[in-house]
Amino acid sequence: MSGILYGLGLGPGDSDLVTIKAAAVMRDVPIIVYVTPVREGKTGASFARSIAEPHLFGKKTEIPIAIPMLDDPTLGRKIYDKVSKEIASYLDSEKNVAVLCEGDPLLFGSFMYLLDRLKDAYTVLTVPGVSSLSAAAAAANLPLVSRHQTITLLPATLSESEIRNRLHEGESAAILKLGKNIAKVKKVLSDLGRLQDALYIEQASMKGEKILPLSDAPNNSPYFSIVLLTNAETK
Amino acid sequence: MSGILYGLGLGPGDSDLVTIKAAAVMRDVPIIVYVTPVREGKTGASFARSIAEPHLFGKKTEIPIAIPMLDDPTLGRKIYDKVSKEIASYLDSEKNVAVLCEGDPLLFGSFMYLLDRLKDAYTVLTVPGVSSLSAAAAAANLPLVSRHQTITLLPATLSESEIRNRLHEGESAAILKLGKNIAKVKKVLSDLGRLQDALYIEQASMKGEKILPLSDAPNNSPYFSIVLLTNAETK
Repeated sequence: MSGILYGLGLGPGDSDLVTIKAAAVMRDVPIIVYVTPVREGKTGASFARSIAEPHLFGKKTEIPIAIPMLDDPTLGRKIYDKVSKEIASYLDSEKNVAVLCEGDPLLFGSFMYLLDRLKDAYTVLTVPGVSSLSAAAAAANLPLVSRHQTITLLPATLSESEIRNRLHEGESAAILKLGKNIAKVKKVLSDLGRLQDALYIEQASMKGEKILPLSDAPNNSPYFSIVLLTNAETK
Repeated sequence: MSGILYGLGLGPGDSDLVTIKAAAVMRDVPIIVYVTPVREGKTGASFARSIAEPHLFGKKTEIPIAIPMLDDPTLGRKIYDKVSKEIASYLDSEKNVAVLCEGDPLLFGSFMYLLDRLKDAYTVLTVPGVSSLSAAAAAANLPLVSRHQTITLLPATLSESEIRNRLHEGESAAILKLGKNIAKVKKVLSDLGRLQDALYIEQASMKGEKILPLSDAPNNSPYFSIVLLTNAETK
Protein backbone atom coordinates (compact mmCIF):
# COMPACT_ATOMS: atom_id res chain seq x y z
CA MET A 1 0.00 0.00 0.00
CA SER A 2 1.52 3.30 -1.12
CA GLY A 3 0.52 6.64 0.32
CA ILE A 4 -2.00 8.92 -1.42
CA LEU A 5 -0.99 12.09 -3.23
CA TYR A 6 -3.52 14.92 -2.71
CA GLY A 7 -3.74 18.00 -4.91
CA LEU A 8 -5.49 20.48 -2.62
CA GLY A 9 -7.25 23.50 -4.05
CA LEU A 10 -7.17 26.15 -1.29
CA GLY A 11 -9.11 28.91 -3.02
CA PRO A 12 -8.29 32.50 -3.90
CA GLY A 13 -6.66 33.81 -0.71
CA ASP A 14 -9.15 34.12 2.17
CA SER A 15 -8.42 31.13 4.45
CA ASP A 16 -12.18 30.81 5.11
CA LEU A 17 -12.67 30.01 1.41
CA VAL A 18 -10.85 26.70 1.96
CA THR A 19 -13.28 23.76 1.66
CA ILE A 20 -14.11 21.50 4.60
CA LYS A 21 -12.54 18.63 2.64
CA ALA A 22 -9.21 20.40 2.03
CA ALA A 23 -9.05 21.48 5.70
CA ALA A 24 -9.63 17.85 6.79
CA VAL A 25 -6.86 16.53 4.52
CA MET A 26 -4.46 19.19 5.83
CA ARG A 27 -5.25 18.25 9.41
CA ASP A 28 -4.30 14.59 8.85
CA VAL A 29 -1.52 14.59 6.29
CA PRO A 30 2.09 14.34 7.56
CA ILE A 31 3.77 15.95 4.53
CA ILE A 32 2.92 19.17 2.69
CA VAL A 33 4.41 20.45 -0.56
CA TYR A 34 4.10 23.98 -1.95
CA VAL A 35 5.67 26.31 -4.49
CA THR A 36 7.82 29.24 -3.34
CA PRO A 37 8.51 31.76 -6.11
CA VAL A 38 12.11 32.78 -6.82
CA ARG A 39 12.56 36.27 -8.24
CA GLU A 40 16.03 37.71 -8.98
CA GLY A 41 17.63 34.98 -6.89
CA LYS A 42 15.45 35.62 -3.83
CA THR A 43 12.96 33.01 -2.61
CA GLY A 44 9.60 34.54 -1.63
CA ALA A 45 6.82 33.28 0.60
CA SER A 46 4.42 30.61 -0.65
CA PHE A 47 0.98 32.05 -1.33
CA ALA A 48 -0.67 28.61 -1.02
CA ARG A 49 1.01 28.00 2.35
CA SER A 50 -0.19 31.36 3.65
CA ILE A 51 -3.79 30.41 2.78
CA ALA A 52 -3.29 27.04 4.49
CA GLU A 53 -1.64 28.48 7.63
CA PRO A 54 -4.70 28.59 9.97
CA HIS A 55 -5.53 25.00 8.99
CA LEU A 56 -2.12 23.44 9.69
CA PHE A 57 -1.88 21.71 13.05
CA GLY A 58 0.93 19.66 14.57
CA LYS A 59 4.36 18.93 13.18
CA LYS A 60 4.52 18.29 9.44
CA THR A 61 7.35 17.70 7.03
CA GLU A 62 7.37 20.64 4.59
CA ILE A 63 8.75 20.40 1.05
CA PRO A 64 8.99 23.83 -0.59
CA ILE A 65 9.46 23.83 -4.39
CA ALA A 66 11.59 26.86 -5.28
CA ILE A 67 10.56 27.81 -8.83
CA PRO A 68 12.19 30.72 -10.68
CA MET A 69 9.46 32.98 -12.08
CA LEU A 70 10.76 32.81 -15.64
CA ASP A 71 8.96 31.94 -18.84
CA ASP A 72 11.44 29.16 -19.65
CA PRO A 73 9.83 25.78 -18.89
CA THR A 74 13.15 23.84 -19.12
CA LEU A 75 14.34 24.64 -15.61
CA GLY A 76 10.86 24.02 -14.17
CA ARG A 77 10.84 20.55 -15.74
CA LYS A 78 14.08 19.58 -13.98
CA ILE A 79 12.77 20.88 -10.65
CA TYR A 80 9.47 18.98 -10.98
CA ASP A 81 11.36 15.80 -11.95
CA LYS A 82 13.44 16.10 -8.78
CA VAL A 83 10.52 16.94 -6.45
CA SER A 84 8.44 14.10 -7.93
CA LYS A 85 11.15 11.64 -6.90
CA GLU A 86 11.21 13.06 -3.37
CA ILE A 87 7.39 12.82 -3.13
CA ALA A 88 7.48 9.28 -4.55
CA SER A 89 9.86 8.16 -1.81
CA TYR A 90 7.37 9.35 0.86
CA LEU A 91 4.46 7.66 -0.97
CA ASP A 92 6.53 4.45 -1.18
CA SER A 93 6.93 4.53 2.60
CA GLU A 94 3.09 4.67 2.93
CA LYS A 95 2.93 8.33 3.88
CA ASN A 96 0.23 10.61 2.43
CA VAL A 97 1.42 13.83 0.80
CA ALA A 98 -0.63 16.98 0.11
CA VAL A 99 0.35 19.53 -2.51
CA LEU A 100 -1.03 22.94 -1.48
CA CYS A 101 -2.40 24.90 -4.43
CA GLU A 102 -3.84 28.41 -4.56
CA GLY A 103 -7.20 28.59 -6.40
CA ASP A 104 -8.14 25.38 -8.19
CA PRO A 105 -5.34 22.84 -8.81
CA LEU A 106 -6.17 22.10 -12.46
CA LEU A 107 -7.06 25.57 -13.73
CA PHE A 108 -3.68 27.12 -14.66
CA GLY A 109 -2.20 25.41 -11.57
CA SER A 110 1.31 24.01 -11.30
CA PHE A 111 -0.06 20.86 -9.57
CA MET A 112 -0.61 19.43 -13.05
CA TYR A 113 3.18 18.99 -13.48
CA LEU A 114 3.37 16.72 -10.41
CA LEU A 115 0.12 14.95 -11.35
CA ASP A 116 1.52 14.14 -14.79
CA ARG A 117 4.69 12.67 -13.28
CA LEU A 118 3.06 10.62 -10.50
CA LYS A 119 -0.47 9.60 -11.58
CA ASP A 120 0.50 6.35 -13.31
CA ALA A 121 2.32 4.91 -10.29
CA TYR A 122 0.30 6.28 -7.35
CA THR A 123 -3.25 7.09 -6.22
CA VAL A 124 -3.81 10.79 -6.78
CA LEU A 125 -6.87 12.58 -5.36
CA THR A 126 -7.49 16.11 -6.55
CA VAL A 127 -9.66 18.28 -4.29
CA PRO A 128 -11.10 21.13 -6.36
CA GLY A 129 -10.95 24.69 -5.00
CA VAL A 130 -12.63 28.07 -5.47
CA SER A 131 -11.00 29.79 -8.46
CA SER A 132 -9.73 33.37 -8.58
CA LEU A 133 -12.30 33.89 -11.34
CA SER A 134 -15.20 33.12 -8.99
CA ALA A 135 -13.61 35.18 -6.21
CA ALA A 136 -13.19 38.21 -8.48
CA ALA A 137 -16.81 38.00 -9.63
CA ALA A 138 -18.00 37.64 -6.02
CA ALA A 139 -15.90 40.63 -4.87
CA ALA A 140 -17.51 42.80 -7.54
CA ASN A 141 -20.98 41.17 -7.29
CA LEU A 142 -20.67 40.81 -11.06
CA PRO A 143 -22.53 37.94 -12.79
CA LEU A 144 -20.07 36.25 -15.15
CA VAL A 145 -22.25 34.41 -17.61
CA SER A 146 -25.90 33.38 -17.87
CA ARG A 147 -28.27 31.14 -19.84
CA HIS A 148 -26.99 30.59 -23.42
CA GLN A 149 -23.83 32.68 -23.07
CA THR A 150 -20.16 31.77 -23.27
CA ILE A 151 -17.16 32.80 -21.18
CA THR A 152 -13.53 32.50 -22.19
CA LEU A 153 -10.60 32.51 -19.75
CA LEU A 154 -7.41 33.72 -21.35
CA PRO A 155 -3.96 34.73 -20.17
CA ALA A 156 -2.79 38.27 -20.86
CA THR A 157 0.55 36.79 -21.92
CA LEU A 158 -0.92 36.09 -25.39
CA SER A 159 -0.20 38.49 -28.25
CA GLU A 160 -2.58 41.35 -29.10
CA SER A 161 -3.98 39.48 -32.08
CA GLU A 162 -4.41 36.22 -30.13
CA ILE A 163 -6.31 38.07 -27.39
CA ARG A 164 -8.49 39.80 -29.99
CA ASN A 165 -9.27 36.49 -31.74
CA ARG A 166 -10.35 34.83 -28.53
CA LEU A 167 -12.77 37.56 -27.46
CA HIS A 168 -16.20 36.87 -28.93
CA GLU A 169 -18.40 39.89 -29.63
CA GLY A 170 -20.92 40.41 -26.85
CA GLU A 171 -19.65 37.41 -24.86
CA SER A 172 -17.94 37.38 -21.47
CA ALA A 173 -14.22 36.92 -20.85
CA ALA A 174 -11.82 36.81 -17.93
CA ILE A 175 -8.23 37.85 -18.55
CA LEU A 176 -5.64 36.45 -16.13
CA LYS A 177 -1.88 36.72 -15.59
CA LEU A 178 -1.87 40.49 -16.00
CA GLY A 179 1.34 41.94 -14.52
CA LYS A 180 3.06 44.06 -17.15
CA ASN A 181 0.67 42.76 -19.82
CA ILE A 182 -2.16 44.98 -18.59
CA ALA A 183 -1.29 47.85 -20.97
CA LYS A 184 -1.68 45.44 -23.91
CA VAL A 185 -5.08 44.31 -22.57
CA LYS A 186 -6.25 47.92 -22.22
CA LYS A 187 -5.18 48.62 -25.82
CA VAL A 188 -6.99 45.58 -27.27
CA LEU A 189 -10.22 46.33 -25.37
CA SER A 190 -10.01 50.01 -26.30
CA ASP A 191 -9.56 49.05 -29.99
CA LEU A 192 -12.63 46.80 -29.71
CA GLY A 193 -14.69 49.55 -28.03
CA ARG A 194 -15.10 47.43 -24.90
CA LEU A 195 -12.72 49.16 -22.44
CA GLN A 196 -15.59 50.83 -20.57
CA ASP A 197 -17.19 47.41 -19.91
CA ALA A 198 -14.07 45.93 -18.29
CA LEU A 199 -13.50 45.72 -14.55
CA TYR A 200 -10.09 45.25 -12.87
CA ILE A 201 -9.94 43.24 -9.63
CA GLU A 202 -6.83 42.88 -7.46
CA GLN A 203 -6.41 40.50 -4.49
CA ALA A 204 -10.01 39.28 -4.55
CA SER A 205 -11.18 37.96 -1.14
CA MET A 206 -8.11 39.41 0.63
CA LYS A 207 -7.40 42.47 2.75
CA GLY A 208 -5.86 44.40 -0.15
CA GLU A 209 -8.88 43.81 -2.40
CA LYS A 210 -9.34 46.53 -5.03
CA ILE A 211 -12.01 46.89 -7.70
CA LEU A 212 -11.55 49.52 -10.40
CA PRO A 213 -12.71 50.25 -13.92
CA LEU A 214 -9.92 48.77 -16.08
CA SER A 215 -9.23 52.22 -17.53
CA ASP A 216 -8.23 53.40 -14.01
CA ALA A 217 -6.04 50.36 -13.19
CA PRO A 218 -2.26 50.74 -12.73
CA ASN A 219 -0.06 49.79 -15.68
CA ASN A 220 2.04 47.35 -13.65
CA SER A 221 -0.51 45.26 -11.83
CA PRO A 222 0.11 42.18 -9.69
CA TYR A 223 0.30 38.92 -11.63
CA PHE A 224 -2.70 37.51 -9.72
CA SER A 225 -5.06 40.34 -10.61
CA ILE A 226 -7.83 39.75 -13.13
CA VAL A 227 -9.90 41.61 -15.73
CA LEU A 228 -13.58 40.73 -16.12
CA LEU A 229 -15.46 41.64 -19.26
CA THR A 230 -19.03 40.53 -18.76
CA ASN A 231 -22.43 40.83 -20.27
CA ALA A 232 -24.70 38.46 -18.33
CA GLU A 233 -28.47 38.82 -18.78
CA THR A 234 -29.81 39.21 -15.25
CA LYS A 235 -33.28 40.63 -15.87
CA MET B 1 -29.75 48.83 9.53
CA SER B 2 -31.11 46.32 7.03
CA GLY B 3 -30.17 42.65 7.01
CA ILE B 4 -27.49 41.28 4.68
CA LEU B 5 -28.29 39.17 1.63
CA TYR B 6 -25.78 36.36 1.10
CA GLY B 7 -25.31 34.48 -2.17
CA LEU B 8 -23.70 31.25 -1.00
CA GLY B 9 -21.78 29.08 -3.43
CA LEU B 10 -22.04 25.53 -2.05
CA GLY B 11 -19.91 23.71 -4.62
CA PRO B 12 -20.59 20.84 -7.01
CA GLY B 13 -22.46 18.34 -4.79
CA ASP B 14 -20.19 16.80 -2.13
CA SER B 15 -21.17 18.56 1.12
CA ASP B 16 -17.47 18.52 2.16
CA LEU B 17 -16.70 20.79 -0.80
CA VAL B 18 -18.62 23.59 0.94
CA THR B 19 -16.23 26.33 2.11
CA ILE B 20 -15.67 27.13 5.78
CA LYS B 21 -17.14 30.57 5.09
CA ALA B 22 -20.37 29.28 3.53
CA ALA B 23 -20.80 26.78 6.39
CA ALA B 24 -20.38 29.60 8.94
CA VAL B 25 -22.97 31.80 7.23
CA MET B 26 -25.44 28.88 7.10
CA ARG B 27 -24.95 28.22 10.79
CA ASP B 28 -25.91 31.77 11.74
CA VAL B 29 -28.48 32.92 9.21
CA PRO B 30 -32.19 32.67 10.18
CA ILE B 31 -33.59 32.52 6.63
CA ILE B 32 -32.56 30.35 3.69
CA VAL B 33 -33.76 30.58 0.09
CA TYR B 34 -33.26 27.96 -2.63
CA VAL B 35 -34.58 26.94 -6.04
CA THR B 36 -36.76 23.85 -6.40
CA PRO B 37 -37.17 22.73 -10.01
CA VAL B 38 -40.68 22.17 -11.38
CA ARG B 39 -40.97 19.59 -14.17
CA GLU B 40 -44.33 18.66 -15.73
CA GLY B 41 -46.14 20.27 -12.82
CA LYS B 42 -44.19 18.39 -10.14
CA THR B 43 -41.86 20.19 -7.75
CA GLY B 44 -38.57 18.33 -7.24
CA ALA B 45 -36.01 18.51 -4.46
CA SER B 46 -33.56 21.43 -4.28
CA PHE B 47 -30.04 20.34 -5.25
CA ALA B 48 -28.50 23.29 -3.36
CA ARG B 49 -30.46 22.47 -0.20
CA SER B 50 -29.31 18.83 -0.35
CA ILE B 51 -25.66 20.01 -0.45
CA ALA B 52 -26.36 22.35 2.48
CA GLU B 53 -28.23 19.74 4.57
CA PRO B 54 -25.37 18.59 6.88
CA HIS B 55 -24.50 22.25 7.58
CA LEU B 56 -27.99 23.43 8.60
CA PHE B 57 -28.53 23.59 12.35
CA GLY B 58 -31.51 24.84 14.37
CA LYS B 59 -34.81 26.16 13.14
CA LYS B 60 -34.70 28.32 10.03
CA THR B 61 -37.33 29.93 7.86
CA GLU B 62 -37.11 28.31 4.44
CA ILE B 63 -38.20 30.02 1.22
CA PRO B 64 -38.25 27.63 -1.73
CA ILE B 65 -38.40 29.22 -5.19
CA ALA B 66 -40.40 26.89 -7.45
CA ILE B 67 -39.08 27.49 -10.97
CA PRO B 68 -40.51 25.66 -14.00
CA MET B 69 -37.64 24.16 -16.01
CA LEU B 70 -38.66 25.84 -19.27
CA ASP B 71 -36.63 27.95 -21.63
CA ASP B 72 -39.08 30.85 -21.40
CA PRO B 73 -37.59 33.57 -19.15
CA THR B 74 -40.91 35.49 -18.80
CA LEU B 75 -42.38 33.30 -16.07
CA GLY B 76 -39.02 33.20 -14.23
CA ARG B 77 -38.95 37.00 -14.18
CA LYS B 78 -42.32 37.20 -12.43
CA ILE B 79 -41.26 34.59 -9.88
CA TYR B 80 -37.97 36.40 -9.12
CA ASP B 81 -39.83 39.72 -8.81
CA LYS B 82 -42.17 38.16 -6.23
CA VAL B 83 -39.43 36.35 -4.24
CA SER B 84 -37.27 39.52 -4.22
CA LYS B 85 -40.10 41.36 -2.46
CA GLU B 86 -40.43 38.59 0.12
CA ILE B 87 -36.64 38.64 0.74
CA ALA B 88 -36.67 42.45 0.94
CA SER B 89 -39.30 42.35 3.70
CA TYR B 90 -37.01 40.11 5.80
CA LEU B 91 -33.99 42.36 5.10
CA ASP B 92 -36.08 45.39 6.10
CA SER B 93 -36.80 43.73 9.44
CA GLU B 94 -33.00 43.39 10.00
CA LYS B 95 -32.85 39.67 9.32
CA ASN B 96 -30.00 38.17 7.27
CA VAL B 97 -30.99 35.96 4.35
CA ALA B 98 -28.83 33.35 2.55
CA VAL B 99 -29.56 32.16 -0.97
CA LEU B 100 -28.21 28.61 -1.36
CA CYS B 101 -26.57 28.06 -4.75
CA GLU B 102 -25.06 24.89 -6.23
CA GLY B 103 -21.57 25.46 -7.69
CA ASP B 104 -20.53 29.10 -7.89
CA PRO B 105 -23.32 31.73 -7.59
CA LEU B 106 -22.21 33.92 -10.51
CA LEU B 107 -21.16 31.28 -13.07
CA PHE B 108 -24.43 30.35 -14.81
CA GLY B 109 -26.17 30.62 -11.40
CA SER B 110 -29.72 31.84 -10.86
CA PHE B 111 -28.56 33.94 -7.87
CA MET B 112 -27.76 36.69 -10.36
CA TYR B 113 -31.50 37.35 -10.87
CA LEU B 114 -31.97 38.10 -7.16
CA LEU B 115 -28.69 40.04 -7.01
CA ASP B 116 -29.82 42.26 -9.88
CA ARG B 117 -33.13 43.01 -8.15
CA LEU B 118 -31.77 43.67 -4.64
CA LYS B 119 -28.19 44.98 -4.92
CA ASP B 120 -29.07 48.67 -5.17
CA ALA B 121 -31.15 48.74 -1.99
CA TYR B 122 -29.34 46.22 0.25
CA THR B 123 -25.88 44.95 1.21
CA VAL B 124 -25.21 41.81 -0.82
CA LEU B 125 -22.25 39.54 -0.03
CA THR B 126 -21.48 36.82 -2.55
CA VAL B 127 -19.45 33.87 -1.25
CA PRO B 128 -17.79 32.12 -4.21
CA GLY B 129 -17.99 28.34 -4.48
CA VAL B 130 -16.23 25.45 -6.21
CA SER B 131 -17.59 25.17 -9.76
CA SER B 132 -18.77 22.00 -11.48
CA LEU B 133 -15.98 22.64 -13.98
CA SER B 134 -13.29 22.30 -11.30
CA ALA B 135 -15.06 19.29 -9.80
CA ALA B 136 -15.25 17.51 -13.15
CA ALA B 137 -11.56 18.11 -13.82
CA ALA B 138 -10.66 16.89 -10.31
CA ALA B 139 -12.79 13.75 -10.70
CA ALA B 140 -10.92 12.86 -13.89
CA ASN B 141 -7.51 14.18 -12.72
CA LEU B 142 -7.54 16.10 -15.98
CA PRO B 143 -5.60 19.39 -16.20
CA LEU B 144 -7.89 21.99 -17.79
CA VAL B 145 -5.56 24.65 -19.08
CA SER B 146 -1.93 25.63 -18.58
CA ARG B 147 0.55 28.44 -19.23
CA HIS B 148 -0.44 30.46 -22.32
CA GLN B 149 -3.57 28.49 -23.15
CA THR B 150 -7.23 29.46 -23.23
CA ILE B 151 -10.36 27.69 -22.02
CA THR B 152 -13.92 28.45 -23.10
CA LEU B 153 -17.03 27.47 -21.14
CA LEU B 154 -20.04 27.11 -23.35
CA PRO B 155 -23.57 25.76 -22.97
CA ALA B 156 -24.61 22.86 -25.19
CA THR B 157 -27.89 24.70 -25.79
CA LEU B 158 -26.17 26.78 -28.52
CA SER B 159 -26.61 25.82 -32.17
CA GLU B 160 -24.12 23.55 -33.96
CA SER B 161 -22.52 26.47 -35.75
CA GLU B 162 -22.31 28.60 -32.59
CA ILE B 163 -20.59 25.73 -30.73
CA ARG B 164 -18.18 25.21 -33.64
CA ASN B 165 -17.33 28.94 -33.77
CA ARG B 166 -16.54 29.07 -30.06
CA LEU B 167 -14.16 26.11 -30.06
CA HIS B 168 -10.63 27.29 -30.82
CA GLU B 169 -8.34 24.81 -32.56
CA GLY B 170 -6.04 23.11 -30.08
CA GLU B 171 -7.52 25.01 -27.10
CA SER B 172 -9.50 23.64 -24.15
CA ALA B 173 -13.24 23.86 -23.70
CA ALA B 174 -15.88 22.78 -21.21
CA ILE B 175 -19.39 22.17 -22.49
CA LEU B 176 -22.18 22.47 -19.93
CA LYS B 177 -25.99 22.05 -19.87
CA LEU B 178 -25.88 18.81 -21.82
CA GLY B 179 -29.17 16.91 -21.36
CA LYS B 180 -30.65 16.13 -24.76
CA ASN B 181 -28.06 18.40 -26.43
CA ILE B 182 -25.32 15.82 -26.03
CA ALA B 183 -25.94 14.23 -29.47
CA LYS B 184 -25.35 17.64 -31.07
CA VAL B 185 -22.10 18.06 -29.11
CA LYS B 186 -20.89 14.62 -30.22
CA LYS B 187 -21.65 15.50 -33.85
CA VAL B 188 -19.80 18.85 -33.74
CA LEU B 189 -16.71 17.32 -32.08
CA SER B 190 -16.77 14.38 -34.49
CA ASP B 191 -16.94 16.80 -37.46
CA LEU B 192 -13.95 18.67 -36.01
CA GLY B 193 -11.99 15.42 -35.49
CA ARG B 194 -11.88 16.04 -31.72
CA LEU B 195 -14.40 13.48 -30.42
CA GLN B 196 -11.66 11.11 -29.22
CA ASP B 197 -10.18 13.91 -27.06
CA ALA B 198 -13.45 14.62 -25.22
CA LEU B 199 -14.32 13.25 -21.78
CA TYR B 200 -17.85 13.03 -20.35
CA ILE B 201 -18.30 13.49 -16.58
CA GLU B 202 -21.58 12.96 -14.72
CA GLN B 203 -22.29 13.86 -11.06
CA ALA B 204 -18.71 14.93 -10.32
CA SER B 205 -17.84 14.67 -6.58
CA MET B 206 -21.02 12.68 -5.84
CA LYS B 207 -21.85 9.01 -5.29
CA GLY B 208 -23.11 8.49 -8.83
CA GLU B 209 -19.93 9.94 -10.37
CA LYS B 210 -19.20 8.55 -13.86
CA ILE B 211 -16.33 9.31 -16.21
CA LEU B 212 -16.52 8.08 -19.80
CA PRO B 213 -15.07 8.88 -23.20
CA LEU B 214 -17.71 11.18 -24.74
CA SER B 215 -18.22 8.68 -27.56
CA ASP B 216 -19.49 6.13 -24.96
CA ALA B 217 -21.77 8.59 -23.10
CA PRO B 218 -25.57 8.12 -23.15
CA ASN B 219 -27.56 10.26 -25.59
CA ASN B 220 -29.86 11.66 -22.91
CA SER B 221 -27.49 12.73 -20.18
CA PRO B 222 -28.34 14.64 -16.97
CA TYR B 223 -28.43 18.42 -17.39
CA PHE B 224 -25.63 18.86 -14.83
CA SER B 225 -23.15 16.60 -16.64
CA ILE B 226 -20.19 18.17 -18.45
CA VAL B 227 -17.88 17.53 -21.40
CA LEU B 228 -14.20 18.42 -21.09
CA LEU B 229 -12.06 18.89 -24.15
CA THR B 230 -8.57 19.64 -22.94
CA ASN B 231 -5.05 19.93 -24.18
CA ALA B 232 -2.99 21.22 -21.24
CA GLU B 233 0.80 21.03 -21.50
CA THR B 234 1.88 19.17 -18.37
CA LYS B 235 5.41 18.09 -19.24
